[in-house]
Amino acid sequence: MNETVIKKMQEILGEAWVVTDLEKVKSYCDDQTEKAMKPEICTDCVVVKPSKTEEISKIMKYANENKLTVIARGGGTSLSGAAIAIMPGIIISMERMNNIIEVDETSMTVECEAGVTLLQLVELFNKHDTLYFPIHPGDEGAQVGGLVVMNAGGVRAVRYGVMRDQIKEMEMVLASGEVVRLGKNLIKNNAGLDLKNLIVGSEGILGIVTKATLSIKPKDKHIGSLIVSFENESDAVKAVTEIFKTGIKPMAIEYMEKKAILKAAKDIGMTWPSSEGAVDLYFIVSERKEDDLYEMYEIIVGICEENNALNSFVAESSKDQRTLLDIRSHVYPSMHDEVVDAIDAAIPMKNLSKYMDSITKISEKYNVHISTIGHIGDGNLHNSILTEGAVKPDNYDEIADEIFALVMECGGSITGEHGIGKIRNKKMNLQFSETELRLMKEIKKIFDPNNILNPGTAL
Amino acid sequence: MNETVIKKMQEILGEAWVVTDLEKVKSYCDDQTEKAMKPEICTDCVVVKPSKTEEISKIMKYANENKLTVIARGGGTSLSGAAIAIMPGIIISMERMNNIIEVDETSMTVECEAGVTLLQLVELFNKHDTLYFPIHPGDEGAQVGGLVVMNAGGVRAVRYGVMRDQIKEMEMVLASGEVVRLGKNLIKNNAGLDLKNLIVGSEGILGIVTKATLSIKPKDKHIGSLIVSFENESDAVKAVTEIFKTGIKPMAIEYMEKKAILKAAKDIGMTWPSSEGAVDLYFIVSERKEDDLYEMYEIIVGICEENNALNSFVAESSKDQRTLLDIRSHVYPSMHDEVVDAIDAAIPMKNLSKYMDSITKISEKYNVHISTIGHIGDGNLHNSILTEGAVKPDNYDEIADEIFALVMECGGSITGEHGIGKIRNKKMNLQFSETELRLMKEIKKIFDPNNILNPGTAL
Repeated sequence: MNETVIKKMQEILGEAWVVTDLEKVKSYCDDQTEKAMKPEICTDCVVVKPSKTEEISKIMKYANENKLTVIARGGGTSLSGAAIAIMPGIIISMERMNNIIEVDETSMTVECEAGVTLLQLVELFNKHDTLYFPIHPGDEGAQVGGLVVMNAGGVRAVRYGVMRDQIKEMEMVLASGEVVRLGKNLIKNNAGLDLKNLIVGSEGILGIVTKATLSIKPKDKHIGSLIVSFENESDAVKAVTEIFKTGIKPMAIEYMEKKAILKAAKDIGMTWPSSEGAVDLYFIVSERKEDDLYEMYEIIVGICEENNALNSFVAESSKDQRTLLDIRSHVYPSMHDEVVDAIDAAIPMKNLSKYMDSITKISEKYNVHISTIGHIGDGNLHNSILTEGAVKPDNYDEIADEIFALVMECGGSITGEHGIGKIRNKKMNLQFSETELRLMKEIKKIFDPNNILNPGTAL
Repeated sequence: MNETVIKKMQEILGEAWVVTDLEKVKSYCDDQTEKAMKPEICTDCVVVKPSKTEEISKIMKYANENKLTVIARGGGTSLSGAAIAIMPGIIISMERMNNIIEVDETSMTVECEAGVTLLQLVELFNKHDTLYFPIHPGDEGAQVGGLVVMNAGGVRAVRYGVMRDQIKEMEMVLASGEVVRLGKNLIKNNAGLDLKNLIVGSEGILGIVTKATLSIKPKDKHIGSLIVSFENESDAVKAVTEIFKTGIKPMAIEYMEKKAILKAAKDIGMTWPSSEGAVDLYFIVSERKEDDLYEMYEIIVGICEENNALNSFVAESSKDQRTLLDIRSHVYPSMHDEVVDAIDAAIPMKNLSKYMDSITKISEKYNVHISTIGHIGDGNLHNSILTEGAVKPDNYDEIADEIFALVMECGGSITGEHGIGKIRNKKMNLQFSETELRLMKEIKKIFDPNNILNPGTAL
């Protein structure tokens, strides 16, 4: 990286907060995207660690004037290459902007700097009697800024929606260095065009989020887990849609192939409660009153039985629930060494059964293992293409093309939660018309006329 | 209106669907904005009534090429002048595009053409056993297209949020005539920049919405109403915030000045159940189980009593609930002849008490009656400036300026649900920085480079 740039960064931040050592820089250039899918990483970068918005503003002004590439980096937990550096540039690590500014119990919001981690929020609200932050996409190293610009999802979207639904207000630095505040801490706000929602899910290409005010929710006192096994996926899908029609909303409904969940359990030396059937549904139910919890179990199990459930198992003790969660959390790690591509399409509920059937057919046609695990309660399944050693098969492009064509045929989205990042850009024209893509690109130009922010991402 | 334009419209639509008769045209140029606030209406317009998207596309292509002003018109129920014609142009009435295309019970959505009225949706779901459309901003003549671009709110936002939260997918015609489909019928969708949310609340300046797919919700079987009276507004506000902290969510919480509600009741020859105190809270509670309804009453009344409630009254029979609703619905009409300006600012919950106190002080300072009625459950109060005959007082500007300065000081929004329209544009610079306004104006230019869509609105 150019010495003049490094000097300027040191001038803005002080030497201590400008990292040029190659080994240290390397660890900031990569993220958690599957190896076989990763674009080539460029380590000719300088990592800077600002502690306040004004510093980021100065960095951006300089970078914009000099047309230098900038990536804002949170926890580096992206699965779509959104945080990977692919050309020389400045990587702004948000790690020092990690203050939780205010918990407002009246408006039920928490205001954070962008470098606050999900773990900090979890720990803060573990100590709180009645409130908590409802979004949990998985990796607790994720930072608020990343959660916002990637519109993080996770298992609890069934009840709470996604990150977008929690974001009240944000502060952001534009490519020009100008600072804007978008949104208000309100339920209703109809003034002006909605710039806030444009930033949510924009993957760091429109500006650098520096603060965000997020909804927090009342904690339910009573939580339980329920495992129900089925012979096949279409019965499981039918049960889920019937449950929604009753008006009840579990906190989460996860779908798992039996063989994947049994392998995960074995790998960590634990026992999964059901060995019957080919697929399981994993319900997390939470209610204000204990009686309601039992009623929920009854309704859910009743509907599942009407849809040919083989058995059901309730976990009530914290220990039993923890075991289920640990096994569930290990499903992805336990297959990780074989994952070529973790496709996370989202499918409208009415086409979910058709989609899953067709995935099975594609798997058979190409004689490749495609595992299906994921958030069935919100239509966001994760179909991972698996091979020994995660080596990309020769016909990978054909398989992926057929899966994404199916996603489009089912009215779905290329990505439900991982984002386009740097690995799905070429699929954008499947989902969007030329006109729609043109509108997006012109909006990008307004926010970032020199295309310095996270280039090669999202569009 | 220019003969060539009329001919072209007749060519696209057939003569029957092009209205030039002045008396008929007049009724399409106005909306429900308060008389004293209205901009000057221009009736030199042609009204066209397309029946399909393709026709709107042709109209827009022609209008854009010839730089003709276009207003898409729904039910004309705007309270901010959004549907008022202020210069010669083409008014596209959506009234013939009134087909409900599909109710999808699995995804729990309804797809509508933009001219479908709220009344049509209400009637459709009155016949449905378990599902309904949750948004009800008031006037059932409002059309789906208007509800979408004005991001309609209403009393049930406490539980269901606003229109924005219900919109899954939309079809829209751009100024150029190009047709785009934005959004997907999904809970999770992270592909591309979020154009859909940019359109919601954009007040018809970015394109013409022609279809929308909206969330529908499970009906609760048990509904009740509860009136609680207080001596003053700060006790009422305190009670509301304490109720939210318990985690329970009534469907609606309305706030009413006692004198306004008693006048409304008297005007329609009905009796309001409580005459004590200065203000009332009106809770609408709905639950899946009857027992839960009683529990809700108990919790709510308990908290209200802790906050010095004077009395409470439960209405359980449909007849009693209807009476309360009729009186509540009549509050605004009963003061209508005196309303100069119906300000609908939204205020964060934690500053609501301060806001209401200060409104009282402003009222005293200027010796003007400012009524406070509205959606306290979502912080969206309606402060109407009242005078005899609704004549704008000489010091109207001073009063309004002081109110809006207060709104800003409290971290609120100029408008919670009515929108900027053509009556609040000059206040935009209170809420937004120059940079923020520039971003909005540049986005407008991308969608509508010739500024033909509803000029003078929103920005």
